[in-house]
Amino acid sequence: MKAFNDIADFSQEQISALLELANRLNENPEPQALSGKVLALLFLSPSLRTLASFQAAMTRLGGGAFVISPDMSIHGLETRPGIVMDGVAAEHIREAVPVIASYGDAIGIRAFAERKDLQKDLDDVEYRSLIELIDTPYVNMESAAAHPCQNLADWKTLDDLGIPANGGKFVLSWAFHPKALPLAVPASTLQMAAQRGMDVTVLRPEGFGLPEQVMAKAKKAAAASGGSVRESEDRQEAMQGAHVIYAKSWSSIAHYGDKIADQKHREQYVDWCVDEPWFAPAETDCRFMHCLPVRRGVVVSEAVLDGPRSVVIHEARNRMLAQMAVLHQMLGGAS
Amino acid sequence: MKAFNDIADFSQEQISALLELANRLNENPEPQALSGKVLALLFLSPSLRTLASFQAAMTRLGGGAFVISPDMSIHGLETRPGIVMDGVAAEHIREAVPVIASYGDAIGIRAFAERKDLQKDLDDVEYRSLIELIDTPYVNMESAAAHPCQNLADWKTLDDLGIPANGGKFVLSWAFHPKALPLAVPASTLQMAAQRGMDVTVLRPEGFGLPEQVMAKAKKAAAASGGSVRESEDRQEAMQGAHVIYAKSWSSIAHYGDKIADQKHREQYVDWCVDEPWFAPAETDCRFMHCLPVRRGVVVSEAVLDGPRSVVIHEARNRMLAQMAVLHQMLGGAS
Amino acid sequence: MKAFNDIADFSQEQISALLELANRLNENPEPQALSGKVLALLFLSPSLRTLASFQAAMTRLGGGAFVISPDMSIHGLETRPGIVMDGVAAEHIREAVPVIASYGDAIGIRAFAERKDLQKDLDDVEYRSLIELIDTPYVNMESAAAHPCQNLADWKTLDDLGIPANGGKFVLSWAFHPKALPLAVPASTLQMAAQRGMDVTVLRPEGFGLPEQVMAKAKKAAAASGGSVRESEDRQEAMQGAHVIYAKSWSSIAHYGDKIADQKHREQYVDWCVDEPWFAPAETDCRFMHCLPVRRGVVVSEAVLDGPRSVVIHEARNRMLAQMAVLHQMLGGAS
Repeated sequence: MKAFNDIADFSQEQISALLELANRLNENPEPQALSGKVLALLFLSPSLRTLASFQAAMTRLGGGAFVISPDMSIHGLETRPGIVMDGVAAEHIREAVPVIASYGDAIGIRAFAERKDLQKDLDDVEYRSLIELIDTPYVNMESAAAHPCQNLADWKTLDDLGIPANGGKFVLSWAFHPKALPLAVPASTLQMAAQRGMDVTVLRPEGFGLPEQVMAKAKKAAAASGGSVRESEDRQEAMQGAHVIYAKSWSSIAHYGDKIADQKHREQYVDWCVDEPWFAPAETDCRFMHCLPVRRGVVVSEAVLDGPRSVVIHEARNRMLAQMAVLHQMLGGAS
Repeated sequence: MKAFNDIADFSQEQISALLELANRLNENPEPQALSGKVLALLFLSPSLRTLASFQAAMTRLGGGAFVISPDMSIHGLETRPGIVMDGVAAEHIREAVPVIASYGDAIGIRAFAERKDLQKDLDDVEYRSLIELIDTPYVNMESAAAHPCQNLADWKTLDDLGIPANGGKFVLSWAFHPKALPLAVPASTLQMAAQRGMDVTVLRPEGFGLPEQVMAKAKKAAAASGGSVRESEDRQEAMQGAHVIYAKSWSSIAHYGDKIADQKHREQYVDWCVDEPWFAPAETDCRFMHCLPVRRGVVVSEAVLDGPRSVVIHEARNRMLAQMAVLHQMLGGAS
Repeated sequence: MKAFNDIADFSQEQISALLELANRLNENPEPQALSGKVLALLFLSPSLRTLASFQAAMTRLGGGAFVISPDMSIHGLETRPGIVMDGVAAEHIREAVPVIASYGDAIGIRAFAERKDLQKDLDDVEYRSLIELIDTPYVNMESAAAHPCQNLADWKTLDDLGIPANGGKFVLSWAFHPKALPLAVPASTLQMAAQRGMDVTVLRPEGFGLPEQVMAKAKKAAAASGGSVRESEDRQEAMQGAHVIYAKSWSSIAHYGDKIADQKHREQYVDWCVDEPWFAPAETDCRFMHCLPVRRGVVVSEAVLDGPRSVVIHEARNRMLAQMAVLHQMLGGAS
């Protein structure tokens, strides 16, 4: 595997193989599989789970990782092309990225959306400009458009819990959040559930529909997998028979890049906080998923988050296991 | 071993076994003992020795560690229970701690005293609320009430130097410091020396007596070990025949949580800086101990700190060796 | 090897042996060579390549590293001797450095020039005061006067590219930069090229001559190696037949420690930005070298930096390989 870039790049068979490997590595550790192998981790955006789980994954396989993030004791990084660097930044990303990559057998890169130009973010222009600089195998640790490590971990979580693929009902619900958040997680989570063959409903208030490009991609995946993708503003209807609700806040594409307009628009929906009554029409053991970090009492009630429906810690631990499988395949651990 | 939480939880025999293991690992390294094993390190308070020595300890045993600290490129962490998270913090400790723990085979946690409510700190309420969130084996890397890694390292240092257990005279002396410091080190150092069977004198000026709860616990340990615990304000008398003076500043419990009153009270005792004349009544080769960091010319004179009495670097190196033994036992290194 | 301190401390034979080892470790990895071995990394100055490449080097050899830098969650470090520490800093370098070193089998230290007193910096007084505190083997990760890891990597790069030693023409050129930069890289790069037996021209504008002490040391090395060292202000003449131009900005020693005077002086030479026309008198395939970070459009044009002459990423990757050889020799990896 040369790149782990987008869950959409992988077939159901490839994903099954990765998840079998993840389970096998959990049950039968291979602490020498990647000995002497190095994973470079470049964080251009903040992280907790990704930072921790990738380092832990490499250690469990006998290799190691190093972390570069812009808040560390490094020279500032310039990203603008064609600039005369007579200001604060002492180094350009055009040197920094290939250099960092050259020390690793693979590189993980995190670069969140700029959230100025929707099309640019949907096309992952900034992230793609970074990976064009390198020959090293790479892992997308969350870009503007995708978060495949989260998707693979969530797929594993759904499998672990015995939630059906075909016939499984997956509700991706917008939730309130004080800030306008990126589209990477909702877009790629929708894609993941559609690829898995689930019946997916995107539940969101007026003005928070996901971009056409995202919906079309997911619908295509659903058509191939025997799943379906639809949208709803009606909570009661959307939650009918649901096996899982995956909560996530995201920006309004109607106001993309305009924080004030987005803020004004979203404040109408401060009551979109997932709470126990939401589950009334759902399956009895309907689960609550979230990629974390999550704001308690804002995105989800304490009762739900601390209750038996919540599988958020399970999801987070699966990040490590899913990434171990990806790294094992990418870095050629003996299987 | 499921937890390394408080030196008081361990018998003399258990401590001897740990220190024998520490010596053995120093002389006969086991660079594969913990291969593939991960230690999660969560620092909610600053660190140098602990940060470095735990990472080094894991590497020496063939495993690895990752570090999460609040100054890193992570989302802010909320600690208040039951809060609606509509402010700055994007993640609650109730998710962050279990997630971080889930990536490790063990977790080390550092969380200093809040120093608002004495009883709460003595009962280690905040630290206990964190470890209640996890099932993973854990190590106390300094809480409000205890610093067992320092205690084990200091016990080893006393052994290394041939300072007698029963019959050894240990002076724990308050020293001046511009800030009101936590009780964890003095309280648990007193406990350690008492458990080791030493004759311990707590030397401190008026108003700096250690809490009743701390003194009572140490006296109980001394009664069982054949040691003794007493207090004194008289330097000459306290230092009579001493084998070691362990200097440390701490808050006045009379003014706990009141920085200004504490400051005013402590400023009378700016001359409590350990200096060569202090040692006149002591054993000729009486040693100077301190957990570091130490303020030169404030807590101790340069002459003493740079002279032959000082064993502070020896103590600090023993942190790594003591922790290697703890981790080896906790994470099941073959012995 | 007890210290890797200055490229001048090593003979051509010793350097050849190190570079052969670097090549061997690149082709035939030894992922167990340093298992259980620890490298302590102390950064008193910022870093990207050094930070990443040393951690990667240790992982590739089966050991590990830990990083301490002043921007981390540690107590502030005091460096002044004989001070009463009643201010902000809670720890003195006299404890911190020996403690950090005590956790490693070797320690790397980075401490840039203070750039107040030229002679002090040329004599590496601050760095030498740090290494006097330790017994552990150590690596200079860039001091006021030297950057031997960069020098060894650059020597390897010249070898890799087949650039002749005796008879090879090496131009070390001053370049414009908005800030007054240290002398460590230009001084030790000059030394490296002279030791390698090359014909070295230091090309710089009026007022930017390197210190007498630096020139004399390099001339002595050239005399022994069959190389030569000269200076020039004439770009055309200096570049005649050049095999490589190594660009670097540095402070004017005429204004050392006086930022404003240096600024005023250097601003005359804002056109000293290496660009394609510079190469007209040189060998056709004359290479462009730089230690990075480099300011695009200021030190070097984008055309040169992104073009086929530039070997800056190759140099940077060689940092890791060169350091692997040093660490392998220093930490006793079986050879």
